Amino acid sequence: MLTNIADFTDPIPLARELIRAQSVTPHDAGALDTLQRALEALGFTCRRYRFEEVDNLYARLGSGAPAFCFAGHTDVVPAGDDAAWRKRPFAAEIDGDMLWGRGAADMKGAIAAFVAATARHLEDAGTPRGSIAFLITGDEEGPAVNGTKKLLEAVTADGERFDHCLVGEPTNPSVLGETIKIGRRGSLNGVITVTGRQGHVAYPEKADNPIPPLLDLLSRLKARTLDTGAPHFQPSNLEITSIDVGNEPHNVIPARARAKFNIRFNIAHTGDDLKAWIEREAAAAGLGFEGRIDLDLKVTGEAFLTRTSPFTELLKQAVGEVTGREPAMTTGGGTSDARFIKDYAPVAEFGLVGATMHQVDERVRVGDVELLTRVYQRIIERYFEVFAP
Amino acid sequence: MLTNIADFTDPIPLARELIRAQSVTPHDAGALDTLQRALEALGFTCRRYRFEEVDNLYARLGSGAPAFCFAGHTDVVPAGDDAAWRKRPFAAEIDGDMLWGRGAADMKGAIAAFVAATARHLEDAGTPRGSIAFLITGDEEGPAVNGTKKLLEAVTADGERFDHCLVGEPTNPSVLGETIKIGRRGSLNGVITVTGRQGHVAYPEKADNPIPPLLDLLSRLKARTLDTGAPHFQPSNLEITSIDVGNEPHNVIPARARAKFNIRFNIAHTGDDLKAWIEREAAAAGLGFEGRIDLDLKVTGEAFLTRTSPFTELLKQAVGEVTGREPAMTTGGGTSDARFIKDYAPVAEFGLVGATMHQVDERVRVGDVELLTRVYQRIIERYFEVFAP
Ligand SMILES: [Zn+2]
Ligand SMILES: [Zn+2]
Repeated sequence: MLTNIADFTDPIPLARELIRAQSVTPHDAGALDTLQRALEALGFTCRRYRFEEVDNLYARLGSGAPAFCFAGHTDVVPAGDDAAWRKRPFAAEIDGDMLWGRGAADMKGAIAAFVAATARHLEDAGTPRGSIAFLITGDEEGPAVNGTKKLLEAVTADGERFDHCLVGEPTNPSVLGETIKIGRRGSLNGVITVTGRQGHVAYPEKADNPIPPLLDLLSRLKARTLDTGAPHFQPSNLEITSIDVGNEPHNVIPARARAKFNIRFNIAHTGDDLKAWIEREAAAAGLGFEGRIDLDLKVTGEAFLTRTSPFTELLKQAVGEVTGREPAMTTGGGTSDARFIKDYAPVAEFGLVGATMHQVDERVRVGDVELLTRVYQRIIERYFEVFAP
Repeated sequence: MLTNIADFTDPIPLARELIRAQSVTPHDAGALDTLQRALEALGFTCRRYRFEEVDNLYARLGSGAPAFCFAGHTDVVPAGDDAAWRKRPFAAEIDGDMLWGRGAADMKGAIAAFVAATARHLEDAGTPRGSIAFLITGDEEGPAVNGTKKLLEAVTADGERFDHCLVGEPTNPSVLGETIKIGRRGSLNGVITVTGRQGHVAYPEKADNPIPPLLDLLSRLKARTLDTGAPHFQPSNLEITSIDVGNEPHNVIPARARAKFNIRFNIAHTGDDLKAWIEREAAAAGLGFEGRIDLDLKVTGEAFLTRTSPFTELLKQAVGEVTGREPAMTTGGGTSDARFIKDYAPVAEFGLVGATMHQVDERVRVGDVELLTRVYQRIIERYFEVFAP
């Protein structure tokens, strides 16, 4: 098959083809094949890594240092109520300057921009003075169990290394160029189960109501101001997300009560420190209670911050040059796969405008996809200027 | 049909016939017909009062003052798991000195004792020097909406009055003669619904979590020591019986949270005072919360105490003479229909041993039913001695 690098310098056709693949996690629906064909046309060596029902792609062009890695995902969240969309969610329609569809912002538009930026760099500068890699998963929006985490372990086991990574998540709240993410808060999910003894409300002395110790523990957890923020970070925050007893009769003291909570925490904390604190509070809340308090605490990501460095400076400079804006270097919002990548290399995130992500009528400006392509191309250029020996 | 008062002086055959009627609320299954036949044989005039699906019976012998009323219910709670019973729940088997079956203790045994005591009194003393009434409902174990409350209103509208009432609920914890109930705690059921605004845990500033104000309100309610008891009463007590949010995802702040609680309160409080207090606490807990807190507060019975009087003294004396025990005059346990009757006449409660009520293997001593019959007969005798002009 004859292919031409110039066929891939425009990100829009590839973005549309990716959006047309209904790759709702864990389904791939051909999205990775589309991407792989493009990367192979640019000269990349591609390897697929399948973990259970999820397909993942690793691609590399060149073998030398420095190695720059683009990371992202081709899976998308469900369209939800198709009828609520003004354009069909998987039709990738363009209307005026808008490209519509599930994944347009999060993050098929950015993946197409990765490819187009690489194609333009290869046209302009020829073979890079190092390597370019793509680390693409099909499980970012789902449980993220068979995605980036396993992919990193597998490619590392296969001898792959990279020096810096840029994730293409939609980091900008409203305008391209506003925000680069240089870290993420950590996240801890907790389930508290308190088991007492059932009885009748008229005879409380014969029962052991699990609700008061649960309330005590939750009040203790809510009472603490975890911190007032940290450089580049919002204050840490605990939200109680559910309490469930399910006791229908008005005159029965229940045997069991359960609560769930989530903590988003900044680098003032580690998951282990928070777990130890919660365990201490549970012990205190359980004093004098004859039942039991069980905790199920899971840290789904530690807080991290990619320190200011020539890498973060070149990102900021490239975004500024192309968009004319000075991006804020922040860490807000939800988690992303950067939480896994940070253990392998310095990582930052910059992508499209995320205002419509995960919603009906997800869409991006066509002009933004072009602008993002130019930002990425400038990043690649500057990267090899700064880091190539 | 020829009938003979002497046919009803033994409570056991009637108790067995009543137990064999599977009168699980709201079904009557012939229980009231059985009772009516017995009362008519003794000369009572019977009237049935049907409210929706529930049948009720009012019977009266004589028309003069003083009027003494026996009150109770023929409905029973479900047998539950029949296979868990050692005897069939509606077979009314006698094994040794035990009469088995659903309702044996609560309270068909006592109703049979009412009838047998009345029969014996009529045999011994002839026409009473006043009136004897029976106020019997088929909805005490259920919602109690179509039972004693409406029956009292209806018979009062029909011109009926009585001066004192004895309810035959199983008041004795373990031995006949231990306990006369001369009041009951009040009961208040509350439902708190807090409505906030849903959102993502990573963006708490865009949401309004209803759980913290709910916890605050519940903590305020639990923090108050309502009282330390009152004469004849245990301390009032509040039990939170359920909290329900039903929010599955770990990363979503819920829109709504609901809690239920019950207060059993003594005469240090009225339902209205408690409602006003809860409303004040809800207002305090809602300060600074942008959502809403809705309260649904229902007083299902006010606390009451039948003051020491010649009536309560004659009950105590009759129980003491027949059982050889000095009964405690208490107000513990659950609610009963005495909460409705107290608005019409002084009311007290004395019945069988309640240890097995509402459980599998409900049963009473045959000897206790006989002893209770003698207590009731002694009460009738003393009643007319004390109160007849
Ligand atoms: Zn994403
Ligand atoms: Zn009862």
